[in-house]
Amino acid sequence: MPTLARRLVAELLGTALLLAAVVGSGIMAQKLAGGNVALALLCNTIPTGAILAVLILVFGPVSGAHFNPAVSLAFSIRSELRWPMAVAYIAAQIVGAVAGVWIAHLMFELPVLQLSMTQRSGAGQWLAEAVATFGLLLTIFGCAARTPGAIPYAVGLYITSAYWFTASTSFANPAVTIARSLSDTFAGIAASGVTAFIVAQSVGMLAAVAIAGWLWRERKPT
Amino acid sequence: MPTLARRLVAELLGTALLLAAVVGSGIMAQKLAGGNVALALLCNTIPTGAILAVLILVFGPVSGAHFNPAVSLAFSIRSELRWPMAVAYIAAQIVGAVAGVWIAHLMFELPVLQLSMTQRSGAGQWLAEAVATFGLLLTIFGCAARTPGAIPYAVGLYITSAYWFTASTSFANPAVTIARSLSDTFAGIAASGVTAFIVAQSVGMLAAVAIAGWLWRERKPT
Amino acid sequence: MPTLARRLVAELLGTALLLAAVVGSGIMAQKLAGGNVALALLCNTIPTGAILAVLILVFGPVSGAHFNPAVSLAFSIRSELRWPMAVAYIAAQIVGAVAGVWIAHLMFELPVLQLSMTQRSGAGQWLAEAVATFGLLLTIFGCAARTPGAIPYAVGLYITSAYWFTASTSFANPAVTIARSLSDTFAGIAASGVTAFIVAQSVGMLAAVAIAGWLWRERKPT
Amino acid sequence: MPTLARRLVAELLGTALLLAAVVGSGIMAQKLAGGNVALALLCNTIPTGAILAVLILVFGPVSGAHFNPAVSLAFSIRSELRWPMAVAYIAAQIVGAVAGVWIAHLMFELPVLQLSMTQRSGAGQWLAEAVATFGLLLTIFGCAARTPGAIPYAVGLYITSAYWFTASTSFANPAVTIARSLSDTFAGIAASGVTAFIVAQSVGMLAAVAIAGWLWRERKPT
Repeated sequence: MPTLARRLVAELLGTALLLAAVVGSGIMAQKLAGGNVALALLCNTIPTGAILAVLILVFGPVSGAHFNPAVSLAFSIRSELRWPMAVAYIAAQIVGAVAGVWIAHLMFELPVLQLSMTQRSGAGQWLAEAVATFGLLLTIFGCAARTPGAIPYAVGLYITSAYWFTASTSFANPAVTIARSLSDTFAGIAASGVTAFIVAQSVGMLAAVAIAGWLWRERKPT
Repeated sequence: MPTLARRLVAELLGTALLLAAVVGSGIMAQKLAGGNVALALLCNTIPTGAILAVLILVFGPVSGAHFNPAVSLAFSIRSELRWPMAVAYIAAQIVGAVAGVWIAHLMFELPVLQLSMTQRSGAGQWLAEAVATFGLLLTIFGCAARTPGAIPYAVGLYITSAYWFTASTSFANPAVTIARSLSDTFAGIAASGVTAFIVAQSVGMLAAVAIAGWLWRERKPT
Repeated sequence: MPTLARRLVAELLGTALLLAAVVGSGIMAQKLAGGNVALALLCNTIPTGAILAVLILVFGPVSGAHFNPAVSLAFSIRSELRWPMAVAYIAAQIVGAVAGVWIAHLMFELPVLQLSMTQRSGAGQWLAEAVATFGLLLTIFGCAARTPGAIPYAVGLYITSAYWFTASTSFANPAVTIARSLSDTFAGIAASGVTAFIVAQSVGMLAAVAIAGWLWRERKPT
Repeated sequence: MPTLARRLVAELLGTALLLAAVVGSGIMAQKLAGGNVALALLCNTIPTGAILAVLILVFGPVSGAHFNPAVSLAFSIRSELRWPMAVAYIAAQIVGAVAGVWIAHLMFELPVLQLSMTQRSGAGQWLAEAVATFGLLLTIFGCAARTPGAIPYAVGLYITSAYWFTASTSFANPAVTIARSLSDTFAGIAASGVTAFIVAQSVGMLAAVAIAGWLWRERKPT
């Protein structure tokens, strides 16, 4: 078992690289797409899905590669992560996420400190976030039960899909949501929309924990 | 062996998420693509192929992850699924498919109840559906014979390809066909075209069962 | 070892589905792309790479999934396929390839019998075909030596790449070249260009056999 | 262990094919994209990520498939590659990279000898190169520690992502940087920018070596 420090650095570093990829590819895509939003979103989607698979392969053996407070909380509810550890993970994820956004701004020579003006709100978007997080957690729990080696690819593919089939482009992650409120670029979300997104994500997460505990309950024969 | 209830919930949930992805990404893609249909179809294809791989990874160990009456019938014909179970699977798939379409409508704040006006008909489309379903079943049977662990990826890649090389964009699934008649969006099919599509899919399925039974007959040494 | 009949049917069926995918997705892509050739080629590339991975997974355990006279000849030169079998394979591949083109025409309700008018010729294109076939064979031999289970994915990814980095969009296959001369659509090649392409492909194949025999010679300890 | 000659030929050949793919697909993409730079970059990205996975699968068992002086140096610093060998590897990589660029020019019937006029410079780009190389090395070391079989796919996916999220489109490789200065096409970089890029890449590499040595130190129990 890696030490606590290494686990937290893995969560921080992984979440930072994830956000650098989400925000950075959004900036690049929008800059080059000549106003075609579908093309811009596609060029934001593919890099995001790809880096997720990579980061889970790389950091999974160190920290579990949660990069997502909803995931850490879910594992705590399932008694697979102690609560104080979950709190430490979530802190590392939020710090890493914000750092990743700022690194993206620095690479593209934009002001580091920004606040998003992109309104993302409404019942459709909230349902979308609940569905997106529900599906993400089900992906993780389902693969963990039988094909854990497939998790990196499954999560990357899931997010690649969810960017398009959810009306909110699938944040599905409270740390990502908070950090993206600090970027007034393609991937941003206005601060006023953050809380409702996180509530919706939590609802989706809890539903997934309940369903998964029943669907794969034979996983734990003890 | 998971209980019956869990198997049916897995079929229902998986088919619902599949349809939410097919219809949802179609809505998003068309909304953003600025009238370029190739780009819209690409942004419908990639999420569909990706979610199929994920859903088969997640639900495969529970129910077999058919999500498709043609697949369940084929396994029954091959005596690998008892007939009453096939009937229950198909019911769960249809209920799930319709629910998935409605969830997509809700996420995008469209009227839940819709009827598609998109005519899909003609000899070319029917041949396409037969070919698409033939290829899908061959993919499943061929991988099942020797590389069952590759089925999730193979099916995802097959549908990614078949969206483009079949003139019908490859429904290849009676439950999907029925459910998509209830969405007047990018992925829709007018009700008048449903029966012929299902007939064509059945023909393709039967051809695949025959060919596969001969090509991989050494699979069962008993 | 599957019987001869099954091996030949696997080669024929696999090559037919490959050509249906190459030509069919080319027709669909060009029809929808609104004149943007890069988009059309991308929507031709992704289905082709995807179906190749699937077909090699499905038919590999039956026939080796060559689908390509250059591959069958190379294995004969390496004494891994008897010469009469190579001849039978090549016949099945050519028949299958032509059938696949015709199925694509039927699905898209185009005249079945066509002759391509697309000139593909010149030193750059010939060098491209030699390079494309050289790389394809190296991919196969290199994976066969150490990671044979990766061949389906490697070949699919290789062709996905070679469509773009070779000036000829990488035919790399004499049966494919012949069959595509029978389609006056996006993927076609005028008959006058076929012979030179096949010569270039053979040169690339022979170079790959030579280099691979040296690079991976420790593969056979006997 | 393959002989020295075979290892160097594998590095040379692999780097040549990598550069042929990077530069060739850039030429093709720009030629066909009708001025849409996002589409051109996407059609440059996908072939590059795909060929990287293939080349590492093919040549990994022979030479380790570095194709990158930053990787060879990093392994030397970690005492996993002797220094004289690293020097020989780097020479083979540079020769191969230049040859690959020239092959791309020949395939597309462009002048073989070119000098890029594309200015790539500035603090943002340099930070991007440091981040890109840091992430690439972390990907390699992280996978090497626990899932070495995933390295080909992880590196392909990483570069697919990094093309978009780094402001420099992620050269992340001194041999690639030098060779791309010899191509006045989509992928080019003016000679005046090369040194700073290589310095930035070295900084990123050293940071990754330090972090990886700590994160995965339990890898070597001896």
